[in-house]
Amino acid sequence: MTAKSQTRWTGEPADLLRVEKGFRLAEVDPRSTPGFDGTKKDGRADLADGVGELDELQERLYAQSRVEKDTPAVLLVLQAMDSAGKGGIVRHVIGSVDPQGVRLKAFKAPTAEERAHDFLWRIEKETPPPGFIGVFDRSHYEDVLIGRVRELAPPEEIERRYGAINDFEKRLTDAGTRVVKVMLHISPEAQKERLMERLDRPDKHWKYNPGDVDERMLWPAYMDAYQVMFERTSTASAPWHVIPADRKWYARLAVQALLLEALEDIDPQWPIADFDVAAEKERLAAT
Amino acid sequence: MTAKSQTRWTGEPADLLRVEKGFRLAEVDPRSTPGFDGTKKDGRADLADGVGELDELQERLYAQSRVEKDTPAVLLVLQAMDSAGKGGIVRHVIGSVDPQGVRLKAFKAPTAEERAHDFLWRIEKETPPPGFIGVFDRSHYEDVLIGRVRELAPPEEIERRYGAINDFEKRLTDAGTRVVKVMLHISPEAQKERLMERLDRPDKHWKYNPGDVDERMLWPAYMDAYQVMFERTSTASAPWHVIPADRKWYARLAVQALLLEALEDIDPQWPIADFDVAAEKERLAAT
Repeated sequence: MTAKSQTRWTGEPADLLRVEKGFRLAEVDPRSTPGFDGTKKDGRADLADGVGELDELQERLYAQSRVEKDTPAVLLVLQAMDSAGKGGIVRHVIGSVDPQGVRLKAFKAPTAEERAHDFLWRIEKETPPPGFIGVFDRSHYEDVLIGRVRELAPPEEIERRYGAINDFEKRLTDAGTRVVKVMLHISPEAQKERLMERLDRPDKHWKYNPGDVDERMLWPAYMDAYQVMFERTSTASAPWHVIPADRKWYARLAVQALLLEALEDIDPQWPIADFDVAAEKERLAAT
Repeated sequence: MTAKSQTRWTGEPADLLRVEKGFRLAEVDPRSTPGFDGTKKDGRADLADGVGELDELQERLYAQSRVEKDTPAVLLVLQAMDSAGKGGIVRHVIGSVDPQGVRLKAFKAPTAEERAHDFLWRIEKETPPPGFIGVFDRSHYEDVLIGRVRELAPPEEIERRYGAINDFEKRLTDAGTRVVKVMLHISPEAQKERLMERLDRPDKHWKYNPGDVDERMLWPAYMDAYQVMFERTSTASAPWHVIPADRKWYARLAVQALLLEALEDIDPQWPIADFDVAAEKERLAAT
């Protein structure tokens, strides 16, 4: 662990947060801050420190991809119950990166056209090109979460999807994409507070949807669906990470740390010029 | 002019920079800072001040569009000679806005499929939906700039395009989109310096393309093509703005000011809840 922004971590965030065999979601405390030995103030300072690192790594990745066509991409998949803080991650972690290197896609309820295709049809079209950081705000996992809880498809189709997802992600990782899957884990109490705040503030009403309470009433069924999802789709090449999210500052710092680790693992390099630098200098000087 | 960030402007930036009848590009000094009565330090401070305003206006616009389907969009069109600072605008002005409300599209040389269609085919697909800020890094104007200078199409086709562009943009503005067209105006001397810096720094080599010098040698022809473009496509509903760009801080501040004006003109409002707030509070409290 060498990154300046991560000196208060007691271990690799990816190791600490990864879903391994035997993982039980019910045992994760949404208010905890696994592996981070610091206060909220420390966390915010470290997040700010990480911005420069993430920025440089992203620019190197993008630069490399301009010359090397097989440069990896990074895909961050965000799943969570409502109000867990996906939007804040996009704004405060992804928002610090040059927008020219980011491909952000928010998946809503599928359209009629999308429903007429396999559930992965609309997903595959949005995977990031080489050198880009892709972000899925919700994803194909909705099809085994709300899909399962609301019985939007027959049980055998839901079963089929876990395998289809693993195959799809295997193709991505085989092609060099780092798939960073994150579930932001909020407590029902924190959700209640956040939804109530949306109702209390007229400038937040637009973020509130009566359907949020309907989903909230199915909390245990959703937790079951997440648990099954982890068991079936946390693979060696594309593992899940569960990030306690009652403390927003921790969740943001942890996602930034996961992205930094993925990029450091790629270790992108400034590409070597594919032209004669000295000759170009002369040519330019003559103009 | 009420916006806090704009108190050092001596007039409305949009008025000062707009291309009107009789405009001559050759008369614009790329090192000038029209209408801004302050230093580089002031400009940077004002840019930082503008971030919060732009952020809130964008969030209001997005919020309104969640409820009102006919909410306007904003489309920023960026054109310039190489190294004039389009990337810096995207990074430092657009990069300060929540990425969830931005649709950024960089247009490269058209693909074979795109060339098989009318030149506006690939453009129309990328116009921003209601409530979004769209950014075109290069645009349909390439088809009357490099298209004209390099004779990529017959003269009568280039002629036809000016009218087709005006019709296209009229459809956009009639539908409520604010089209903010910006040419960043750099001097050939400043370009030479910036290209030389790219050649001097190995971490900048990837930004250099030998083709840049080829285009540079056609500078007067490009300036002529811009002049004709301004005359033919600076319309009342979608005027051009020429922003002197030798001073990066000024160009960024001016683009931010144009975006602020477009958003203030829309004057987006937090939407009124389309549900019964009191009833929802009770329903939520009961969970």
